[in-house]
Amino acid sequence: LKAVILAAGRGSRLGELTKERPKGLVKLLGLTLLERAILSAKEGGVEDFVIVIGYKGEKIREEIGDGKRYSARIRYVENEEWEKGNGLSLLKARDHLSSESRFIIMMCDHVFDPSAIKKLVNFKEEYPFVLLVDRDLSRDTGEATRVKLSNNLVIDIGKGLKEYQALDCGLMLSTPEIFRAIEESLKVGDDSLSGGIRVLSKKGGVRALEIDGFWMDIDTPENLSEAERTLLNSLTKPEDGIISRSINRRISTRISALILKKWGRVNPNLISAFSFLIAISSSILFAIGSLALGGILAQTSSIIDGCDGEVARLGFRRSKFGAWLDSLLDRIADFSMIFGLSWGYWELAHDQVVWPLCFLSLMGTFLISYTGSKYELDFGELAVFSRVDATRDVRIFLLMIGAILGRPIETLLLLAVITNSMVIRRILITWKRWRESP
Amino acid sequence: LKAVILAAGRGSRLGELTKERPKGLVKLLGLTLLERAILSAKEGGVEDFVIVIGYKGEKIREEIGDGKRYSARIRYVENEEWEKGNGLSLLKARDHLSSESRFIIMMCDHVFDPSAIKKLVNFKEEYPFVLLVDRDLSRDTGEATRVKLSNNLVIDIGKGLKEYQALDCGLMLSTPEIFRAIEESLKVGDDSLSGGIRVLSKKGGVRALEIDGFWMDIDTPENLSEAERTLLNSLTKPEDGIISRSINRRISTRISALILKKWGRVNPNLISAFSFLIAISSSILFAIGSLALGGILAQTSSIIDGCDGEVARLGFRRSKFGAWLDSLLDRIADFSMIFGLSWGYWELAHDQVVWPLCFLSLMGTFLISYTGSKYELDFGELAVFSRVDATRDVRIFLLMIGAILGRPIETLLLLAVITNSMVIRRILITWKRWRESP
Repeated sequence: LKAVILAAGRGSRLGELTKERPKGLVKLLGLTLLERAILSAKEGGVEDFVIVIGYKGEKIREEIGDGKRYSARIRYVENEEWEKGNGLSLLKARDHLSSESRFIIMMCDHVFDPSAIKKLVNFKEEYPFVLLVDRDLSRDTGEATRVKLSNNLVIDIGKGLKEYQALDCGLMLSTPEIFRAIEESLKVGDDSLSGGIRVLSKKGGVRALEIDGFWMDIDTPENLSEAERTLLNSLTKPEDGIISRSINRRISTRISALILKKWGRVNPNLISAFSFLIAISSSILFAIGSLALGGILAQTSSIIDGCDGEVARLGFRRSKFGAWLDSLLDRIADFSMIFGLSWGYWELAHDQVVWPLCFLSLMGTFLISYTGSKYELDFGELAVFSRVDATRDVRIFLLMIGAILGRPIETLLLLAVITNSMVIRRILITWKRWRESP
Repeated sequence: LKAVILAAGRGSRLGELTKERPKGLVKLLGLTLLERAILSAKEGGVEDFVIVIGYKGEKIREEIGDGKRYSARIRYVENEEWEKGNGLSLLKARDHLSSESRFIIMMCDHVFDPSAIKKLVNFKEEYPFVLLVDRDLSRDTGEATRVKLSNNLVIDIGKGLKEYQALDCGLMLSTPEIFRAIEESLKVGDDSLSGGIRVLSKKGGVRALEIDGFWMDIDTPENLSEAERTLLNSLTKPEDGIISRSINRRISTRISALILKKWGRVNPNLISAFSFLIAISSSILFAIGSLALGGILAQTSSIIDGCDGEVARLGFRRSKFGAWLDSLLDRIADFSMIFGLSWGYWELAHDQVVWPLCFLSLMGTFLISYTGSKYELDFGELAVFSRVDATRDVRIFLLMIGAILGRPIETLLLLAVITNSMVIRRILITWKRWRESP
C-alpha cells in the first residue's frame, strides 16, 4: 500500500515557525511533522510514500531524503500552485497513484496515533473513498473540516457546514476515483480535497470510519504545545507503580522531551545503559558505606530508567531487543543495589543477620519481577495485581529513603517483608482469579 | 458441536482385559479409553457427548456418569446388537443427532492427540462427511481400515482394499446424511460404518483430511503398550536441557506413569508442592552442613519437578495457574538451595568470600530463568538458545555433584561463572538474532 502525504502548504498561522521552513518541517518533540507522519504510517505497515511538496519544497527533499533513513521509499512531486487548494496537490501525484487500486492520503500537519493507519490498512469493505472521522466534536481546535453523516456514509463535508456529526481527521483510504472527483469539483470552482470528497459523497461513495486513538490538526503554536502535552501524557503505562505515577514519570517525561529536542531520535538502548551505569555506581557507593549519595543515585537511575521507553516510543524506535535488554539491566541493577547495601553494612558491623535479610530481599525483588512477566506469559494478559504493589519504582524509592536515613538493616528487612508478602498476595490473587474464571 | 462416541463393542482381541469390562473401560496410563476420548475432545472444544453402549454398557454408565466430572454433558444410547457392525451403533444415536447440522464421530478405542479434534472442528468447507486419514501407511498395526483417495476425496474405504493411499484414523465430521447412507449399505448386507461412508464416497461426498499428530487404534495388549510408550515419549519438551533429556525425563516419565496408574488424574499442583518440599529440605540440609544428602535431595526434587507437567498433560489437567505456580516454586527452590549451601559454608569456615559468590550465583540463576521467560514474552517465541545451556536441570545436577564432593565454594563459583557467562551469551545471541531479523 502506498501513501501520499500532502506537504505543499506553508502553514502561515504557525507564524515565525514557518518563515524559513515549510509546515512539514516544523518540529514536535524533536521530530518534524513529516517524519512523524512517515514513521506513524510505517508502524501501520506502509513503506512507500509520495510526498507533494510546494512552499520551500527543496528543504523537505534535503531533510527527509529518499527514505533510506526510515527504511522506506520516498518520492517527491512538486506543486507550484501550493497557495491554492490542496485538491491540486493530490492531482499532481496522480501519475504515481493512478495504477494503484487503493492508497492512503495523509496531511503532513496532522499528528495521530499509528493505530489510525492500521485501521485504514485493515479496512476491507470496498468503497471509492474511506474517511477517518471523529464524532467527538470537542476535539475541534477551531479550523477542523466538518463532516455530515448518514449512518456510516459521508453525505457532505466542508469547513462551513452548519449541521455536522463528526470531524475530518485528515487520514483517508482512497481509490483513483478521487482524481476524477477533484476535476469535477474544479469545474465548480472548488480546488480543495474536501471538494473532491464532496463530489464522491453525493454519489454515496464515501464511507466514514471512526478513529480510535489520539489525533490533532496542527495549525497554530498553541496546537503544537497541546500535541506535545498529549503525547507526553500518553506515556504513562497501566503497570506503572504509585511512585512512578506520582513522581518518576513527571520527571522522566520532561527529561525525555529535552533529550528528543536536543538530540532527536536517540538510540533508547544508550539511555538504558546510562541508567544502568548510575545504578551500578549507586551499588558501589552503598558497598563502600556512602549511603545517602548511593540512595540519591539509585532514585536518579530509577527515574532515568523511564526515559528509554519514552524516547523509544516518541522517537518510533521501539524494539523487542531494547525492551528485553532494558528489563535485564534493571534486574541486574536491582540485585547489585541490594547486595551493595548488604556488603556495606557487613563491612561496617560484621553482623551476620544481614545475609538472610539480603537473601530474602533478593528473592522477593526477583519474584516480583518474575511473577509479573511470567503471569503475562502464562495468562496472556498484563499483570496488574493492585494499585499499590512492590513494583520497582516503589522498591527503589524505599531504598533511597532508608539509605538517606542511614538504616540499611531496616531497609533490607522492609524490602524483604513487602516484596515477599506482595508475592504471596499475588499468588492468592492469581489463584482466586483462576478459580473464578470459567 | 456434539460428538458421538461408539463404545458398544467388546474388543475381544484385548483378551483378559475385556473379560469383565467393555473396551472403552480399558485403562491406558490410568485413564480409561473413553475418558481419554472425552477429555481429548473437550480440549478440542466439544462439550456435548452421546455414547453408544452395548457390551457391559451398564459399567460404562456407572464409571463415566453424566459428564459432570469432566464438565461435559453425556447421554447414553443402548445398542443391543453390539456384536454386529458399528454402523448399527451409529444408527441408534440417530434421534440425538438428526437435528444437528454437523457432529463428530469418534471410536472409543482410538487414542489421538487433541489437535485432531481441533482440526475437524475448524474445518469449514461443506461436505456431507469429512474423514481424518493418515497417509503414513506404516502406522497400520494390522487391522486398520484402508482408504482410497482421489485428490482430497475418498473414493473407496474398507479393510480389504488392495489399492489404497491412506488409513482411516477413526475420527470424522459428519452430517445426518450418514444415516441414510448406512441404511442404503444395510440393504446390500454391510452393517459397518465404513459401509455407510463407502455409499457417500461413491457420490463424491466424503472429504479426506490429513491428521497431524499422534493417533493409534487400540486392538491388542501390544497396541496398548505401544500407545503408552508413545505418549510418554511425547513428554520431552524442546526447551529441556541436556541433563533433563539424558537423565531426568527418563526417570520422571516412569514415575508419572506409576502415579497415573496408581492414583489416576492427580492434581498436578500437589506434585509441584511435593517437589518443592524436597527442595526446601535439601536447602536445610545444605545449611546445616549435610552436603551429600542435600545434593541427592536436590537432584531428586529436580526429577520429580518434571512429573507435575507430565501428569498434567497425560491426565488432561493442565492449567495456566499450575504452570505459573510451578515456575514460581522452582525459582524459590533454586534460591533456597544456593543460599543454604552458602550459609552452611559460612557457618563452617567463616570465610566472607562466600557472600559475593552466593550473590553472583543467585543473580546468574535468576537471570537464566528471567531471560528465558522474558524472551518468550517480548519476542513471542520459545527461547531456545543452545543445546547445552545453564538450564535448571544442569544447574541442580552440578549442585548435586559439588555437594557430594564436599566442595561448596567451588560449586558456587562454578554456578556463578556458568550462569552469568550463559546470560552474556544469551544477550549476544539475542542481539545478533535481532540485528539479522528483517
